[in-house]
Amino acid sequence: MDTGRILSAVREKKPLIHHITNQVTISECANITLATGGLPIMAHAKEEVAEMVAHADALVLNIGTLTTEQIEAMLLAGKQANDLQLPIILDPVGVGATGLRSECAKQLLTKLKISIIKGNAAEIAILAGGVAEIKGVESIAVSGDVEALAAALASETGAVVAATGEIDLVTDGCRLVEIYNGHPLMAEVVGTGCMTASVMGCFAAVEKNFLQAAVAALAAINVAAEEAAMEAAAPAAFKNKLFDKLHGLTPAVLSAKQRLEERVVTV
Amino acid sequence: MDTGRILSAVREKKPLIHHITNQVTISECANITLATGGLPIMAHAKEEVAEMVAHADALVLNIGTLTTEQIEAMLLAGKQANDLQLPIILDPVGVGATGLRSECAKQLLTKLKISIIKGNAAEIAILAGGVAEIKGVESIAVSGDVEALAAALASETGAVVAATGEIDLVTDGCRLVEIYNGHPLMAEVVGTGCMTASVMGCFAAVEKNFLQAAVAALAAINVAAEEAAMEAAAPAAFKNKLFDKLHGLTPAVLSAKQRLEERVVTV
Amino acid sequence: MDTGRILSAVREKKPLIHHITNQVTISECANITLATGGLPIMAHAKEEVAEMVAHADALVLNIGTLTTEQIEAMLLAGKQANDLQLPIILDPVGVGATGLRSECAKQLLTKLKISIIKGNAAEIAILAGGVAEIKGVESIAVSGDVEALAAALASETGAVVAATGEIDLVTDGCRLVEIYNGHPLMAEVVGTGCMTASVMGCFAAVEKNFLQAAVAALAAINVAAEEAAMEAAAPAAFKNKLFDKLHGLTPAVLSAKQRLEERVVTV
Repeated sequence: MDTGRILSAVREKKPLIHHITNQVTISECANITLATGGLPIMAHAKEEVAEMVAHADALVLNIGTLTTEQIEAMLLAGKQANDLQLPIILDPVGVGATGLRSECAKQLLTKLKISIIKGNAAEIAILAGGVAEIKGVESIAVSGDVEALAAALASETGAVVAATGEIDLVTDGCRLVEIYNGHPLMAEVVGTGCMTASVMGCFAAVEKNFLQAAVAALAAINVAAEEAAMEAAAPAAFKNKLFDKLHGLTPAVLSAKQRLEERVVTV
Repeated sequence: MDTGRILSAVREKKPLIHHITNQVTISECANITLATGGLPIMAHAKEEVAEMVAHADALVLNIGTLTTEQIEAMLLAGKQANDLQLPIILDPVGVGATGLRSECAKQLLTKLKISIIKGNAAEIAILAGGVAEIKGVESIAVSGDVEALAAALASETGAVVAATGEIDLVTDGCRLVEIYNGHPLMAEVVGTGCMTASVMGCFAAVEKNFLQAAVAALAAINVAAEEAAMEAAAPAAFKNKLFDKLHGLTPAVLSAKQRLEERVVTV
Repeated sequence: MDTGRILSAVREKKPLIHHITNQVTISECANITLATGGLPIMAHAKEEVAEMVAHADALVLNIGTLTTEQIEAMLLAGKQANDLQLPIILDPVGVGATGLRSECAKQLLTKLKISIIKGNAAEIAILAGGVAEIKGVESIAVSGDVEALAAALASETGAVVAATGEIDLVTDGCRLVEIYNGHPLMAEVVGTGCMTASVMGCFAAVEKNFLQAAVAALAAINVAAEEAAMEAAAPAAFKNKLFDKLHGLTPAVLSAKQRLEERVVTV
């Protein structure tokens, strides 16, 4: 898979990524979009989201600090994105922790056509109907096989599913790619998951093969994390370096450093 | 007082700290929680706060960008926390500046059992019924003795009261501890006060003696600030180092560097 | 123009700058206010904004993540600011991208007396009734002469108009000042535009000649950016340095490094 080619396309097209996202990492999501090579726009008023999506190249929905007003805005924006055939990335932050989040995720998945669902192992398991333990927004334990659950969720929804963890996996229900890049410091910074969804928005905006887009996005932020960790050993320093290493990441370096394994889903 | 022991417990238990907080420092509060050793969760929709608190180990309420919807959510979350006997930390940001903030603080203090009230000298004085000048969220001047006002507020509410300033003080109305650690650069960064409340949430989640929890939390962030200031002389650099020094702070170093004075309240 | 003198006045008076602003850069706006020498206050509940403005020295309105509730709060706060003759800075982020933003900007400009309108070239052109292309919040192209459009907007509204870009320009409709300071890395960081409005709030709070206040504010953040770029070559590192260089900027250095050209408007 040529991840560098997709990064090149992001840098060339500068896609506009519309986010309806949480208050915690909204600044980080905007900055990582810029660092990747896209342009961020954040807008959540129901009076303007459909109009704003019409200018965008992809839509990122993140339920991290969900409200009922946001659900309404997400549905309006998502319907517009579907009508315009723009990719939608869903980050179901903390799904399963409360009924509101679970109900919202269910509505988004049934009323909208989602291109990529990105979550940690527990979030993906819960969406797939499995059993998992989540503590706040952190995945603690999953009963059963994450690969099987992710593939089932992909088959059921038609979305590409990305489950992040020590090893990330992306599947469309038939094929599965594991991404071995990354660094443990990513878990010491709030929002690397949210940022990953923004990077996926940039990549999906320029690559219609969403399996490839999701894999390339994960490879990109993970390679940047590896480079950041070579120069920073603590969370805040690492976070700053992560932006700057992704900003400076070249397609050639990305292609050279990607560590992927692709195979058919075996479950 | 063995502050290091409490920090050890935080690191071991990884308590989940539910915040209903302001939009300005919400990211900083989440990151400092992680740096301390806890896990942050931010949620403010009235439809989910009670359910989210049920998973948490402590609740932090911060009125920095208050809305009427937030007051409702704070009361729902706080009632649940009280029912479950979880500690509640109240950060009455800017109380006294507007009627909305004063009315909210009054409601929270009368309808909920608060474990720790943390504010600057002016905020504590105003809550205690005293007279103080506040400029935005900065304490300018207090008429009267902060120690007496803090002790009176503690006695009246049953909460431990922490008044931050050049020297921080914590009191339960009978005993009083002064914390001499800290650094002036903390005042040059927006949100060190909010972050302190998050650190207190982590400590109160593992130490039921809230006087000790509040003192240990102040000692921890203040010792981290001292270490940060040895490597950074300007606000943004200092802020980054503050996260990283707290993340790297060991119980042994905390215990060794704490500078506390404990005595009975003399007023 | 003695920009250093105005910076001195900011440092001496420590003006309180009330912001009603977007969720993306609210933390950055607060921190840059502190770095400039002012005190930030963020408040947006309609129940408290008028009361909060009464304590403030200037009001900054930013429509970056606009909601209908915010429009109401902005009008209440703005009316109070006008009654108290406090300067109002308007940052019409993304105006023209949606009807909500355009309608809001129109209401603010007709119902309030705005002191300084600060936008990128496209935003200023759109407000002036011209034609421009905006992508998210980035100015892509303007049909016609930005100087003429800015001068027309100034004449029509009575506000000083600042159009940022490679070369910034500030005009009151009669005179025009170009600011040649600055650095391309400012465009690689989300929120330098928003932060500029906060700096203008600080300067306008102490200098009633709003043309001079706007010019001095732009010179200050741009000179800080130049100094930051000498020590940082990537966005996140640059952003941290920007805060710290503005925090450390002395009036003498600002006056020495400012690169301004003043002339009468020729269109």
